[in-house]
Amino acid sequence: MSHNTFGHLFRFTTWGESHGPAIGCVVDGCPPGLAITVEDIQRDLDRRRPGQSRFTPQRQELDQVEIQSGVFTDESGQQVTTGTPIGLVIRNVDQRSKDYGDIAKKFRPGHADFTYEAKYGLRDYRGGGRSSARETAMRVAAGAIARKVISGITIKAGLVQLGPHKIDRSRLDWSIVDDNPFFCPDPGSVQPWSSYLDGIRKAGSSIGAVIEVVAEGVPAGLGAPIYAKLDQDLASAMMSINAVKGVEIGEGMAAAELTGEANADEIRIGADGQPEFLSNHAGGILGGIASGQPIVCRFAVKPTSSILTPRRTIDRDGNETEILTKGRHDPCVGIRAVPVGEAMMALVLADHLLLHRAQCGDAAK
Amino acid sequence: MSHNTFGHLFRFTTWGESHGPAIGCVVDGCPPGLAITVEDIQRDLDRRRPGQSRFTPQRQELDQVEIQSGVFTDESGQQVTTGTPIGLVIRNVDQRSKDYGDIAKKFRPGHADFTYEAKYGLRDYRGGGRSSARETAMRVAAGAIARKVISGITIKAGLVQLGPHKIDRSRLDWSIVDDNPFFCPDPGSVQPWSSYLDGIRKAGSSIGAVIEVVAEGVPAGLGAPIYAKLDQDLASAMMSINAVKGVEIGEGMAAAELTGEANADEIRIGADGQPEFLSNHAGGILGGIASGQPIVCRFAVKPTSSILTPRRTIDRDGNETEILTKGRHDPCVGIRAVPVGEAMMALVLADHLLLHRAQCGDAAK
Amino acid sequence: MSHNTFGHLFRFTTWGESHGPAIGCVVDGCPPGLAITVEDIQRDLDRRRPGQSRFTPQRQELDQVEIQSGVFTDESGQQVTTGTPIGLVIRNVDQRSKDYGDIAKKFRPGHADFTYEAKYGLRDYRGGGRSSARETAMRVAAGAIARKVISGITIKAGLVQLGPHKIDRSRLDWSIVDDNPFFCPDPGSVQPWSSYLDGIRKAGSSIGAVIEVVAEGVPAGLGAPIYAKLDQDLASAMMSINAVKGVEIGEGMAAAELTGEANADEIRIGADGQPEFLSNHAGGILGGIASGQPIVCRFAVKPTSSILTPRRTIDRDGNETEILTKGRHDPCVGIRAVPVGEAMMALVLADHLLLHRAQCGDAAK
Amino acid sequence: MSHNTFGHLFRFTTWGESHGPAIGCVVDGCPPGLAITVEDIQRDLDRRRPGQSRFTPQRQELDQVEIQSGVFTDESGQQVTTGTPIGLVIRNVDQRSKDYGDIAKKFRPGHADFTYEAKYGLRDYRGGGRSSARETAMRVAAGAIARKVISGITIKAGLVQLGPHKIDRSRLDWSIVDDNPFFCPDPGSVQPWSSYLDGIRKAGSSIGAVIEVVAEGVPAGLGAPIYAKLDQDLASAMMSINAVKGVEIGEGMAAAELTGEANADEIRIGADGQPEFLSNHAGGILGGIASGQPIVCRFAVKPTSSILTPRRTIDRDGNETEILTKGRHDPCVGIRAVPVGEAMMALVLADHLLLHRAQCGDAAK
Repeated sequence: MSHNTFGHLFRFTTWGESHGPAIGCVVDGCPPGLAITVEDIQRDLDRRRPGQSRFTPQRQELDQVEIQSGVFTDESGQQVTTGTPIGLVIRNVDQRSKDYGDIAKKFRPGHADFTYEAKYGLRDYRGGGRSSARETAMRVAAGAIARKVISGITIKAGLVQLGPHKIDRSRLDWSIVDDNPFFCPDPGSVQPWSSYLDGIRKAGSSIGAVIEVVAEGVPAGLGAPIYAKLDQDLASAMMSINAVKGVEIGEGMAAAELTGEANADEIRIGADGQPEFLSNHAGGILGGIASGQPIVCRFAVKPTSSILTPRRTIDRDGNETEILTKGRHDPCVGIRAVPVGEAMMALVLADHLLLHRAQCGDAAK
Repeated sequence: MSHNTFGHLFRFTTWGESHGPAIGCVVDGCPPGLAITVEDIQRDLDRRRPGQSRFTPQRQELDQVEIQSGVFTDESGQQVTTGTPIGLVIRNVDQRSKDYGDIAKKFRPGHADFTYEAKYGLRDYRGGGRSSARETAMRVAAGAIARKVISGITIKAGLVQLGPHKIDRSRLDWSIVDDNPFFCPDPGSVQPWSSYLDGIRKAGSSIGAVIEVVAEGVPAGLGAPIYAKLDQDLASAMMSINAVKGVEIGEGMAAAELTGEANADEIRIGADGQPEFLSNHAGGILGGIASGQPIVCRFAVKPTSSILTPRRTIDRDGNETEILTKGRHDPCVGIRAVPVGEAMMALVLADHLLLHRAQCGDAAK
Repeated sequence: MSHNTFGHLFRFTTWGESHGPAIGCVVDGCPPGLAITVEDIQRDLDRRRPGQSRFTPQRQELDQVEIQSGVFTDESGQQVTTGTPIGLVIRNVDQRSKDYGDIAKKFRPGHADFTYEAKYGLRDYRGGGRSSARETAMRVAAGAIARKVISGITIKAGLVQLGPHKIDRSRLDWSIVDDNPFFCPDPGSVQPWSSYLDGIRKAGSSIGAVIEVVAEGVPAGLGAPIYAKLDQDLASAMMSINAVKGVEIGEGMAAAELTGEANADEIRIGADGQPEFLSNHAGGILGGIASGQPIVCRFAVKPTSSILTPRRTIDRDGNETEILTKGRHDPCVGIRAVPVGEAMMALVLADHLLLHRAQCGDAAK
Repeated sequence: MSHNTFGHLFRFTTWGESHGPAIGCVVDGCPPGLAITVEDIQRDLDRRRPGQSRFTPQRQELDQVEIQSGVFTDESGQQVTTGTPIGLVIRNVDQRSKDYGDIAKKFRPGHADFTYEAKYGLRDYRGGGRSSARETAMRVAAGAIARKVISGITIKAGLVQLGPHKIDRSRLDWSIVDDNPFFCPDPGSVQPWSSYLDGIRKAGSSIGAVIEVVAEGVPAGLGAPIYAKLDQDLASAMMSINAVKGVEIGEGMAAAELTGEANADEIRIGADGQPEFLSNHAGGILGGIASGQPIVCRFAVKPTSSILTPRRTIDRDGNETEILTKGRHDPCVGIRAVPVGEAMMALVLADHLLLHRAQCGDAAK
């Protein structure tokens, strides 16, 4: 994996800054003959797009994606992938010419301003430049193509914790995630979360969240031992998303508290003659390889550092100062991380489907 | 990253099964001219070696490492790296010829038996074959070489949670980790943990744990944005260790509960004229790049599936049955994961030191 | 190296089809702080652009490159690289809506039509799609950035053979390559080559060529043994250019006829106290590593398969038929391969400069 | 591709110096369930082993390979690959404790002594260390495993030119290559070559050679466009072999002299209803992808620099001096490059078979 490329075989490379002329990506290694339209990609992008509710920032990016290469209208009139790299571009339309003075000179505590400057000796401070979460739009676009590769697999994702408020899993209902502004799978949490986040928003504050992504229908055998483990690649994928500080598979950190007896996912033969696990503490992965159970992955997103309350910091010249962020706020960046997490799951699974087929000659059982 | 190779530039490739003739690794990309002896590597291996206390299995592996290539005695009589691949081998001495009947046919719940068979159609069941934690010995050996590359950086690691029992951080003392059988940095936890784990051990049971690894002296600027993030590569490294189910950086999963105000690591100018952070919620990484603060990483290890209590399972022929594991037990595999976590931290940092030097031309500030 | 990405550390990924909306590339791993303008890139592109003489096709592509990301105007008003991926795009303007009927159905002998169809089951036949030499424009663009990385190194290239006509090396003069339509470094060959190629052109035929690329000022030590050899990576780079069938370093294929005595490049101490080689049969590379002498690389380009004389072939339905190519012709595609070869040399050297700095900590001696 | 690793998916990593305790390699990504024995590998190694005739050096290396991992005896008693890394080791037995004084201090002209020292600041001079052709033994071993992956493909190789003497292709007979000391496929060349090389040998001189490697039965569709071209990877593979200075596919450098009419491999429908090419100027590869015709690759090997005639050089301290190489001589290192070239062909094809299967889902047509 290179600096701006993700994946072993189904690979994508992103480019672009928040306030440059455009952002884009190249999806390489895609199988040929998959039907894909710009609408398939736009649908996923629209779920991530800002300005969808009062809980996401009001930046007016339309995020209209253009397919520049790698697809072709075949004889039957269908647009399909050709096996060559798929170039995707989104032009940035909301590049307000504004005064970046404060951000240009000062380092926001908890933000990558300081570290980019330490690494490169300079940084594109306009809208956060390359460190902006705007880059994740291209993950979602690439993920829409990955979904075509793993057509038999279903991916569900949602916010399962907002600040200190966890969902009640007895009410879990994935069907409602697109019907509320939080991608929340618990109908009983929507109203209390709305009130809570309004408070955060009005205070110019921000809060963290936990996202859960579940993949069903993943064939047993996908993944690989040692250094291309499926859970390893998922950890890498999720931790690469902006603001993520922790990743869990199955029981996650709580696995530390389990005994061997409690942790064992016992196996029986199901009514269909196939192996049936009686529990899923493992989150669908054993030894880095899928067991056929649902893959369960969670990640925690920290609160954004762009807040109205002044924080102590220094400037580029080494002077002590303070900073606060005016303008468009994102009270919980975790919300928009939900479609990004889904996309990364799709991308990792598509990659492993190709890896498995390469070595073992089938698409797993 | 390939199936059995880890790293971008400072790369290592491991091979070998638990009960084969030997295990080994190849360390590639190492800078030339670093002084290294077999004792340097053996010292780290001995910390991981089984049979050190009643809490680690009594398998009599001496784990004597041999350097096969890549070092040379220079004119001053010192053994130094030459820049060519360093081949390391450990011969397996404790390959008891025993009856593997039960494990050969049945799948241990919570173990990789089932998934290896699903992936490859066959598996080397002797001692777990490639899925055995024995592979981690080579990570420790490679890590000893990585430490030479990052000579100015200090890595500390220990068990911070054993089952439900967390350390009391007010008593944190890293200097004691090598003086107790748990690598525990809290003197007040050693006695209660001993009693607790004796109970687990005598019951033929097992329990999980949380390991914390801290790197101090990491130069600001190490790491890279987007898909070679330092935290991403650490998540990948730690999740690739056997039995790990969760990885955290800094606040980790708890970051979800923080507000932007609480999460901001404010910055001042220290007495030495250098930037000084007033807290370290970020765990030393912002935007995938080191801030110069200590890198703080934790990971959770699940309990081993090798327990004395019978668990329901199936065999290779699809029959329902039960299994229990007799013989050498490891009540908490998390203990021996401590030196492995240290090694992976060293390996990721050495790799990023080279990556940074390649692009930016210095070893960061 | 992936399907559409080249390089270890200084990497570029290209996308786009000949007759799609645009072509582009992403240059990743570039050091920060290098001054670069769109004119720097355009200058190199203009040397490769078709329609420059009667010996290159009259397609009216302006090949205007746009920098989409990865550069920033610093405090001094200079546009510099930021260390993040540089996105480059060239919009295709000459996409004549024409009838592709013949090419759509029939396979041109000697062209990739047949093999793309065999691999992918379909192909974008418009202008050759992805297999068009139009892709090489992005190599030239990426190469212009690579030149900034290797600023102390000089690269010269030219046609040293046109069909059966070789240059007379006693007249070698690299200073004239940009003053004739062949990039020919031999003033005495320009006139006879013009007459010869006019004959080929008027006959609707095509002819092959040999290109030589020489890099001077390459520091001794650049390169790496075994599987990242400098000559290996050059062979890979040059053979990846469309229509190339052979690559030579130094003596090349003629090395087979030399004795050990004749082949030895003897070494003396020069007037400056530095090692001085008395000959350069090795072409500047020994054991995969630069010796400090000029790197000398040659490659042969076959004639294009687009000719006016009908050739026997088959169509997609398995019928025997004939094909001939009307319209814009390129009597010697080798001419435009000269700036492409230069670019690939720059890209390989930039990559190896970073690789060397990573492992050995300096930019070689 | 890393410094000491070759391949995208079917990858091997070699380690070891000429006069160290052992050399070895790790083959990763091998499909599971392939029957393989140590004899299969030894057979290929024995063809490359020195001391087979008076034209190869008399070093008494038995080159006995040991399989350390990655294979398992299955229920039917057959030894098969498990899909995990295959560790191979050859212990060096002929490490005469001798005086390396001259080679330790002086640089052999035409040898990698100088460049290793320039790169690393030191070198293991014993027997050439890592730069010794001894490394190629592990390529042959890895190639024996690759052959199992491409079981339907036949690879033939031989010396087609010895010094200035080319074979007469009208007498081409691949069946005799293992019956003469040159791997020569022309019965009429064996006797004259013997006389010629005896002269070279007795003079303590050395000479170059050209090797041709042909693969038949390669499915159309194998390979990939742009930067994983089949011919590109072959060029990389062959150029990475010690002493190789040129690589050709099909017509090779001579393609420069062909017209488009002459170069076109016309296509008809054969008696079996399949496409049939009327010639093979392309050497079986078009646009980087196999056409189904035989893959034809040639490479030139320069003469070894170890000769009896003194050559002028310098020593490590910068003094002018002379050097000559006593002891075991190899009058034509190209001879032993034949099995190495075969192995590299097998390795590239196995790699591309997996790459193709990954993206396109079958093993090509």
